[in-house]
Amino acid sequence: MKDGAARVLEALREAGGRPCSGGSLAEALGVTRAQVWKHVEALRRRGYEVEGTPGGGYRLVCVPDRLYPEELQAGLATRWLAHEVEWLDLTDSTNRVAGERARAGAPHGYCVVAEGQTAGRGRQGRSFFSPPYLNLYTSIVLRPELALAEAPTLILAAGVAVAEAVADCVGDPQKVEVKWPNDVLLGGRKTSGILMELVAEGTRVGHLVLGIGVNLNVDRATFPEEFRETATSLASYLGRPVERAAFARRLFVTLEGVLDLHAARGFAALRPRFDFFYRMAGRPIVVSEPGGARLEGVALAPDADGALNVRRHDGEVVRVLAGDVTLSARAEARP
Amino acid sequence: MKDGAARVLEALREAGGRPCSGGSLAEALGVTRAQVWKHVEALRRRGYEVEGTPGGGYRLVCVPDRLYPEELQAGLATRWLAHEVEWLDLTDSTNRVAGERARAGAPHGYCVVAEGQTAGRGRQGRSFFSPPYLNLYTSIVLRPELALAEAPTLILAAGVAVAEAVADCVGDPQKVEVKWPNDVLLGGRKTSGILMELVAEGTRVGHLVLGIGVNLNVDRATFPEEFRETATSLASYLGRPVERAAFARRLFVTLEGVLDLHAARGFAALRPRFDFFYRMAGRPIVVSEPGGARLEGVALAPDADGALNVRRHDGEVVRVLAGDVTLSARAEARP
Repeated sequence: MKDGAARVLEALREAGGRPCSGGSLAEALGVTRAQVWKHVEALRRRGYEVEGTPGGGYRLVCVPDRLYPEELQAGLATRWLAHEVEWLDLTDSTNRVAGERARAGAPHGYCVVAEGQTAGRGRQGRSFFSPPYLNLYTSIVLRPELALAEAPTLILAAGVAVAEAVADCVGDPQKVEVKWPNDVLLGGRKTSGILMELVAEGTRVGHLVLGIGVNLNVDRATFPEEFRETATSLASYLGRPVERAAFARRLFVTLEGVLDLHAARGFAALRPRFDFFYRMAGRPIVVSEPGGARLEGVALAPDADGALNVRRHDGEVVRVLAGDVTLSARAEARP
Repeated sequence: MKDGAARVLEALREAGGRPCSGGSLAEALGVTRAQVWKHVEALRRRGYEVEGTPGGGYRLVCVPDRLYPEELQAGLATRWLAHEVEWLDLTDSTNRVAGERARAGAPHGYCVVAEGQTAGRGRQGRSFFSPPYLNLYTSIVLRPELALAEAPTLILAAGVAVAEAVADCVGDPQKVEVKWPNDVLLGGRKTSGILMELVAEGTRVGHLVLGIGVNLNVDRATFPEEFRETATSLASYLGRPVERAAFARRLFVTLEGVLDLHAARGFAALRPRFDFFYRMAGRPIVVSEPGGARLEGVALAPDADGALNVRRHDGEVVRVLAGDVTLSARAEARP
């Protein structure tokens, strides 16, 4: 959106539903009344409902349900995250777009948001179901001062930020949990997927792209068959829609805090917050490891470096560095 | 190079300097004598010296000093490494090219070789001096089944492979050492730089590009001022040139073995070979860490996860995950 239209929108928003005269808008922005009218028309084309009031004034009646930069950034209380937002109506994958932007030099905190994805990426090359206009799909470019060896805990840290944003939104933190490494479950069902893609140069992380998908307003009943029992959305859980832009802003603020803390003091400083949402300990799990190996056992707590500990049925404790965890429904045979 | 020319070259090479008649070549390849002649002309244009012998035969007199695929692959005893080689006369950076090929789907072991680089990359965004036709600049695409947390030790493992290839070539392993994480020094001077760039997806490595530059025949006296005292080449050390293609083949075989062992049994299996070349223990060093912090102390052995241990002057042992090490010339003040 053009700067002028954004400034008119800001002024209308600040008026809080009260009408603004075209003359006062023109004066405040240093433009003509005709230009104000053109900006208002631009806003209307973008989906903003702007009422003309008697005497040539304007009133903001309704904002469109879109994750436009001007919506995400309105009152956004971050220091560096999402100060640049690239909005896409429909794209193949926000992670792919953000990766390209990162390689082209996009700054720390650069944010790509799409209303829908045709090829949303999940871990292990799986797809992430991404219907348009209902959820949040965002990928953020980060350029941390980070050793490659510290990257695995950043994956867990990102899960903490999403879990806290989800908990804030539903108002019931006890129903939210993190499944290692960073799936966020609500009432036992997956609501969020996080895919971190990073480029390392030698022993350091060069840049990374943190892709976050959160099921907000999608109806569980519309999920593909394979996800219907295991996934949910915040709206399906709450029984009412959530405001997507407000959720995104809350997530960005939380995430910025988590990332800054991880950078300054490491995962140890986030450990109590991670542990609050970590409810896998003692539960039977199956892990599919890279290369196809399959590990069954009982989940223990992760190590300080982010590796998951699993006690096999023969009693041996195995460290899992990477893998896909399935929480088993069966009761555990051994205590 | 076209297939036909490659097959003529192979036949001439197999003849070991003895002449091959045009008729026997034509018969062996199932083509006409005129086509054999065209292939020979193609070889000559590429720099191969092929002598016409009385009676219409051909004899391979001299191969060009180029790292052509047909030179690198002649008798190459690898199972998967460098079975596809992309040769470039001059490029900006083999790592950039290989990264693009990897993103486009290049297979495990795909190899980019350039005679020279205009923007050879080193760690921390530094440049790698890359004059043409004298050294080896190669970048290899790898698609390992690897957890992100295991990647740091792969950086060390790559250094072992280069150190062994250098040691084989100069015939004096005691003069070769690895400076953490993976610079290879010969007689105390740097001969090789390795830059690993990887793309991780979640907790796993998606693909990685292993860039290796080795100073082979460049004259030390031609180095830029800043490197002249601290860098050398195999030829400057030996006082005679080395055969570049032969060095590359030896490196590829060694590297393949190292990578397969790392994949199968982890860095622990390579540890004795790493330790042979690790001669930093007990020496005073300065480490520049990400973010600009500076650490002085005495180098100890690396941990099993690849982190360098440094004993500070106050006695505390610090783990270094990433950083740039300078070996100090000063004698250590404390025992």
